[in-house]
Amino acid sequence: MSKPPSLRGRRRAGPAQLPLGFRFSATACGLKKKPGALDLALISADKPCAAAGVFTTNLVKAAPVMLSQQHLHRTAGRARAIIVNSGNANCSTGPDGLRAARATAQAVARALHCRREEILVCSTGVIGVPLRVERILSALPVLVHAHRADPSHFSSVTRAIMTTDTRPKWVATSCTIASRRVRILGCAKGAGMIAPNMATMLAFVLTDAAISPAVLQRALRDIAGKTFNAISVDGDTSTNDTLLVLASGQSGARVSASGRAASRAFFTALETVCWKLALQIVADGEGARRVVEVEVRGAASNRAALQVARTIATSPLVKTALAGADPNWGRILAAAGRSGVRFDPERANIWLAGIKMYSRGRALPFDERAAHRRLLSDFVALEVHLHTGRGIGRIWTCDFTAEYVDINASYRT
Amino acid sequence: MSKPPSLRGRRRAGPAQLPLGFRFSATACGLKKKPGALDLALISADKPCAAAGVFTTNLVKAAPVMLSQQHLHRTAGRARAIIVNSGNANCSTGPDGLRAARATAQAVARALHCRREEILVCSTGVIGVPLRVERILSALPVLVHAHRADPSHFSSVTRAIMTTDTRPKWVATSCTIASRRVRILGCAKGAGMIAPNMATMLAFVLTDAAISPAVLQRALRDIAGKTFNAISVDGDTSTNDTLLVLASGQSGARVSASGRAASRAFFTALETVCWKLALQIVADGEGARRVVEVEVRGAASNRAALQVARTIATSPLVKTALAGADPNWGRILAAAGRSGVRFDPERANIWLAGIKMYSRGRALPFDERAAHRRLLSDFVALEVHLHTGRGIGRIWTCDFTAEYVDINASYRT
Repeated sequence: MSKPPSLRGRRRAGPAQLPLGFRFSATACGLKKKPGALDLALISADKPCAAAGVFTTNLVKAAPVMLSQQHLHRTAGRARAIIVNSGNANCSTGPDGLRAARATAQAVARALHCRREEILVCSTGVIGVPLRVERILSALPVLVHAHRADPSHFSSVTRAIMTTDTRPKWVATSCTIASRRVRILGCAKGAGMIAPNMATMLAFVLTDAAISPAVLQRALRDIAGKTFNAISVDGDTSTNDTLLVLASGQSGARVSASGRAASRAFFTALETVCWKLALQIVADGEGARRVVEVEVRGAASNRAALQVARTIATSPLVKTALAGADPNWGRILAAAGRSGVRFDPERANIWLAGIKMYSRGRALPFDERAAHRRLLSDFVALEVHLHTGRGIGRIWTCDFTAEYVDINASYRT
Repeated sequence: MSKPPSLRGRRRAGPAQLPLGFRFSATACGLKKKPGALDLALISADKPCAAAGVFTTNLVKAAPVMLSQQHLHRTAGRARAIIVNSGNANCSTGPDGLRAARATAQAVARALHCRREEILVCSTGVIGVPLRVERILSALPVLVHAHRADPSHFSSVTRAIMTTDTRPKWVATSCTIASRRVRILGCAKGAGMIAPNMATMLAFVLTDAAISPAVLQRALRDIAGKTFNAISVDGDTSTNDTLLVLASGQSGARVSASGRAASRAFFTALETVCWKLALQIVADGEGARRVVEVEVRGAASNRAALQVARTIATSPLVKTALAGADPNWGRILAAAGRSGVRFDPERANIWLAGIKMYSRGRALPFDERAAHRRLLSDFVALEVHLHTGRGIGRIWTCDFTAEYVDINASYRT
């Protein structure tokens, strides 16, 4: 358990330094209802980059997800740019949707003088509404003309990808490999599938490390499992979820798959960026008042521990109790009991906000008022020990407030 | 899809006729906070009955659940009475909890002059708080003295088992077997695990049919799967869920396992009673404004269909949209897509409130206002056709309102 820093947003408007080799721009092309709202962004690399991606596991995939997966596959992990729109998910839009995504990639490729397969396309917004692709196409010249390696342009990108997010989300860090400085910069939007019609978690991470696509893809899959795939706002998996990493190599620092200390420092930094972005997403979950770290220890396996943690983290009863700062450990025990994982309740222990409340079949006395006060914090630790093995699993979630329901029950039109 | 009658409660205060051979009484023993609130009930049979039960699958089982399972096993399905308290679940209460449940059974057995194993014990209420069993024991003489074969006494029982229920739930029916009238009467409380600390769905069904315990148990397990196990309010399984059926045999009408028409009529009537009780529970789900029937057809198997139906019926995004009467079919498709069941979204169809909204990969045009009006109804049908096989599954659920969160977030003390 580790308290994450600065969940509630950042003081600075943007990063002090950008990874070498990337440019950014954003504009308003009219896909969002609000006039002038940023809704189209371009992240481009000066030269082809190593690229890796992790995509939604939902059977229902948006057209841009299908296209980007295809492109990454065809280029064996090379990319020049990410073009992303908000205001429309381009999902369940039939063959026209796929044509729209292709036309977008084609137009960006023409402007950047590269192959269409080197362009990755992302969309987020309403499902099942035809995408007005002509608006994207007519805004492209402006976007390409404006792209700069400028922190304020990056900030515009973080705002252009927002839908129901209440604040932009980004993380910057650096590490040193063989005396060379490597920068890692990431931004994200959304929180699972959280909004009335908005769907999607999107995250883009950029680095100037030199790394092969295969090594990057393997590392990313592993890191995604421990970060983005270990958060839950409402248990709903979006049709558009996409995590992309581009590595320009312009720092000149080589990262290899070997366990050398220098490479390990890079992978640790990459995981930290992903983890912090993931926590920012949870903290900005619709209606959320606090982040909850659910840690299950002592399960028969890590997989079993994760299953129990996930069941607790998605239980409406647990999450509503947390909204009310109610130290209701009985709901945690009951959620664990229905998780499908075998354990002996008579041997389990439960801690909430650091207070041991249940031990080996019995409720322990504790100060209810003190527990309530602790549960009012921004970050709450919830720990369960099953005492059946050595498996550990962690899930980060948020509380479940009436505001979530109000936001999601509102009529679309 | 079949519209259930009278979800919103019944005009009559109680059934016109009771099954032969049963007596009822209820009293206030002081387990509920509100002074004078009914919280202890006794259902007794004049002679030993055939008995069958279905219990929670949660690993964490309350003491009375463990005891009643043991008793049914030891008697091979014979029982004389059900004693039930509300106000305390007697769960996670350690060895003292089990002693309390045993002492209760022992005291009832002594009063009714039968074996302790013939007494079934149920509890519902707060988890992890020691049960004040002495209050139950001192109220028992009053309870036994007052038990009568009287519809108004049965009505008191339906109120004594309530916790956060807003109304008593009961169903009465009859059928004819070989010219003899057989009565079936059931009552229930709760809706899964729905309340701040209250846990439990309890249902008791009484009949004067003559049936062997083994046949009754087999039929009940099958019927529970299609009724009580096919409803969901919040996806949380309680530690105390119990469904019991007692058959006194006093009508003189024999029911056998064979497929004879007369026996079939009994099983159909029993299933109808269970289904109507289950729907009354959903309709009284915390904060619920409407009952939703989720029907999935065309899956590879019934099991796969049920898995898709259950994922849709427990999706917070689908349920909040239904609370807002929002025809948001995209969320239904996305929930089906993450259910773990393989199907081709390009071949699926979705109907909501009888309106086809999605067909084979595309959104269909429909009148949003008309759809919204239809979704405001008490009972909404949601139908998905996967076009991959012949499997069918149905789940009944309710919408997910801000009121649910408000009720469940409130601080316990």
